[in-house]
Amino acid sequence: MKLIIKDMDIATGITLVAIMNRKDAALLDLHLADRIMIRKGSREIVAVVDFAETAKTIPQGTLGLFEEVLANLHAKSGDEVSIHPVQKPESLLYIKKKMDGGILSYHEIKSIIDDVVNNKITTVELTYYVAANYMKGMDFKEVVHLTRAMINSGNKLEFGNRIVVDKHCIGGVCGNRTTPIIVPILAVAGLTVPKTSSRSITSPAGTADTLEVLCNVVLEMKDIVRVVDKTGACLVWGGAVHLAPADDSIINVEHPLSIDAEGQLLASIMAKKGSVSATHVIIDIPVGYGTKVTSQKRAKHLAKEFSKLGKELGMVIDVVITDGSEPIGNGIGPALEAIDILRVLKNDPKAPKDLRNKSLAMASVLLESTGKAKKGHGWHMAEALLDSGLAFKKFIEILTEQGIRASDEKEIALGEYHFNVRANKTGFIKMMNNRALSRIARIAGCPEDKKAGIFLFKHNGDKVINGERVFTVYSESSIKLRYAKEMVEKVSGFVIR
Amino acid sequence: MKLIIKDMDIATGITLVAIMNRKDAALLDLHLADRIMIRKGSREIVAVVDFAETAKTIPQGTLGLFEEVLANLHAKSGDEVSIHPVQKPESLLYIKKKMDGGILSYHEIKSIIDDVVNNKITTVELTYYVAANYMKGMDFKEVVHLTRAMINSGNKLEFGNRIVVDKHCIGGVCGNRTTPIIVPILAVAGLTVPKTSSRSITSPAGTADTLEVLCNVVLEMKDIVRVVDKTGACLVWGGAVHLAPADDSIINVEHPLSIDAEGQLLASIMAKKGSVSATHVIIDIPVGYGTKVTSQKRAKHLAKEFSKLGKELGMVIDVVITDGSEPIGNGIGPALEAIDILRVLKNDPKAPKDLRNKSLAMASVLLESTGKAKKGHGWHMAEALLDSGLAFKKFIEILTEQGIRASDEKEIALGEYHFNVRANKTGFIKMMNNRALSRIARIAGCPEDKKAGIFLFKHNGDKVINGERVFTVYSESSIKLRYAKEMVEKVSGFVIR
Repeated sequence: MKLIIKDMDIATGITLVAIMNRKDAALLDLHLADRIMIRKGSREIVAVVDFAETAKTIPQGTLGLFEEVLANLHAKSGDEVSIHPVQKPESLLYIKKKMDGGILSYHEIKSIIDDVVNNKITTVELTYYVAANYMKGMDFKEVVHLTRAMINSGNKLEFGNRIVVDKHCIGGVCGNRTTPIIVPILAVAGLTVPKTSSRSITSPAGTADTLEVLCNVVLEMKDIVRVVDKTGACLVWGGAVHLAPADDSIINVEHPLSIDAEGQLLASIMAKKGSVSATHVIIDIPVGYGTKVTSQKRAKHLAKEFSKLGKELGMVIDVVITDGSEPIGNGIGPALEAIDILRVLKNDPKAPKDLRNKSLAMASVLLESTGKAKKGHGWHMAEALLDSGLAFKKFIEILTEQGIRASDEKEIALGEYHFNVRANKTGFIKMMNNRALSRIARIAGCPEDKKAGIFLFKHNGDKVINGERVFTVYSESSIKLRYAKEMVEKVSGFVIR
Repeated sequence: MKLIIKDMDIATGITLVAIMNRKDAALLDLHLADRIMIRKGSREIVAVVDFAETAKTIPQGTLGLFEEVLANLHAKSGDEVSIHPVQKPESLLYIKKKMDGGILSYHEIKSIIDDVVNNKITTVELTYYVAANYMKGMDFKEVVHLTRAMINSGNKLEFGNRIVVDKHCIGGVCGNRTTPIIVPILAVAGLTVPKTSSRSITSPAGTADTLEVLCNVVLEMKDIVRVVDKTGACLVWGGAVHLAPADDSIINVEHPLSIDAEGQLLASIMAKKGSVSATHVIIDIPVGYGTKVTSQKRAKHLAKEFSKLGKELGMVIDVVITDGSEPIGNGIGPALEAIDILRVLKNDPKAPKDLRNKSLAMASVLLESTGKAKKGHGWHMAEALLDSGLAFKKFIEILTEQGIRASDEKEIALGEYHFNVRANKTGFIKMMNNRALSRIARIAGCPEDKKAGIFLFKHNGDKVINGERVFTVYSESSIKLRYAKEMVEKVSGFVIR
């Protein structure tokens, strides 16, 4: 059948969809979510059939296409294309099999993940897969298969026989920006550290958002390889380079119901590590109010599962269960966290001790597990590399290769609007509330506005006097600051006892 | 926050969605699938947040709205609206509860179904509910709750203390248009028969598509009440009057993976019966190649479940398991089926015997269960009402009240293009293939083109001579006829032994 294209002027960013008139569809016996091959000249693409609710939008003889499909076909409104029904992808059979309690093979899981990555299955179809993994559970073999499938469906960084280290933190703690401190320490020790980080989804900043204050983080594969070859490490945004890219689509359908199947969590984290060829990995599981993992018991269970999965994939995994009861460091938000990082790396007396100590502890675990330091000597070695200024020098070297933007806190501007939040009585800080502070910082503009955020003067256990500053909120906009103030009135952000 | 409306010029027909710029969303800490209240003057509506993939589509300060939302707000492109975050619907908690193995109460299921009907939950969220019902199963109480929730979330036809009869067929058999024959027989016997029928989704014709050849079937509630009051019956399209309307949304997400949870099937059928206040119902389960229910065992199991559910809802249910191995009647497609119906009701010698007999058998079951006929005398009574011409007279009375279009086959035109399919050897018809014939008829134009379809000269067991006509395919378009011919070459439609 030949049809005339109508540009829908929207990018869905998800499945490749073609909107048909119901009468045209009837002629080819096509139903909702059936697949058609669309051909223009020598170019062709498979899309999923959807219907316009009113014939007015898509009159008979026309085909509604979104930007992704148009780009793929090199087509525009008014062009003629031919369409042909094609079979639904076989991955749908495997999703149904999983729903019916079947155990999927590597081939079957790989077929689903490939179709997710190539936008060949719809959001509803992917939802069934995620729902099945959640309700039927995944056995250990399936988790291994899913991890491998995710690794093999994207790009991969490879480093031959080198020892490659990586870290991951299961979020929920404000600040806590240990990565930019650990990476140069490990690189100075001679380890390869191709660190990719994420941007924030629900927190005031992801590591990539914070690093962006100090340097360019959007590098192509070839530039990442160049930076790692030259400096032994990198500090980039992972989202730019399609490492284990199925993850984002899965998170998208998990979000509305806060679904978080354990097997999927394990696979999605370990796939990112596998995609950079990590041999030694440290995983930080903070436990506390408002963190992702809220009980010691579950943290210990996850630790065991990570180690088992790592073994299967040929990686050495160390898991540390850390205190997630309050923010780590004084800054929350990209600019303020960047200042904390510089202070720790420069051994500035104003450096937050908790951030320095946590970073040293984590670096020492990797120095010992890779054999760079003897058992019990990791901390000493990490501290020496930091205190000597070698880690800072390496940090600047990495930033320079990526495109440096700032190396001193004087170069980092904060939001021009701010207000102080003060203690309303004298006592001790019982809780700096991660979840409330995160909300306040986001409303002040984080992570989009780099200069927005919160600077903490107090941590858990600190004494405060009535009227004393507990934290300052910064924003680039007076309106956002007002919204943030209203939120502080609602949630406060701390408890004094 | 105040935003300017951008009309997206699409009707989604599903969830009420508002497309935001990511920066605006960040300001209110809004994420994908969060809910916002949109207000314009005194009108307000809750919509689900979605994001434009490119900022080009929705620049900061604008809000993308689809036709449904615009109509609801009485708004147009360029208008200013204010938005406020609101809580996600509590029905999502119940969906999650079901996914976690919980058993839902009436209140919880009602809350989900209400939100489905009012487009308050997204397709992904509904998919999780359907997936949970499929994978966790529904206990009998939940099926009862779901049925009641579906009945109570839509319009209802009520008839006081009258005996109200209804029928349903679990599809898969071509032709098989018994409803228009049974309804007037029962109405003449003094029963109330407010029959609503569906249009085709995957078959060559639904009862509503066929009846539309003979009369208007799109009636409003008040007109249905008038026709039933006057004639004792009606023969209308159910889709026009929102009886148990959640069904369509559920079918939409079931379709891509051909999910068909038993509890949902039972509830969806019985809800339609409940919504017309049926007291006595007959359910036809055809079993054969290509029908929905393919084994006697499953048919018997379903029969038991229907009876149990009916009892709970205060209905008397009779289930008949019938031969679904071939089409019933000679016509397939709206016009050809309408001709079959007229021939049976007029006692025309050309009337298909199988259709007459099946209709009489089903009518007799209801005449007996309602006490209109004594046990064993139903068939005799039904036959008398048909042979006397009283049923035909009643039929014309109903059609006239609804708006008659044809009462004689001479008034019914068939497609001007046709071709004959002939036997390629001498022998006996082993199988007239429901599934293949359905496909051929649809490609010839059914159900959209009323005049398209298939006329069968042969049924299972009939002798055929090499070169003899087995069936004729009609179409309104030479192109569609050519497509249908190509399909016949692929699937044939019958087997000779």
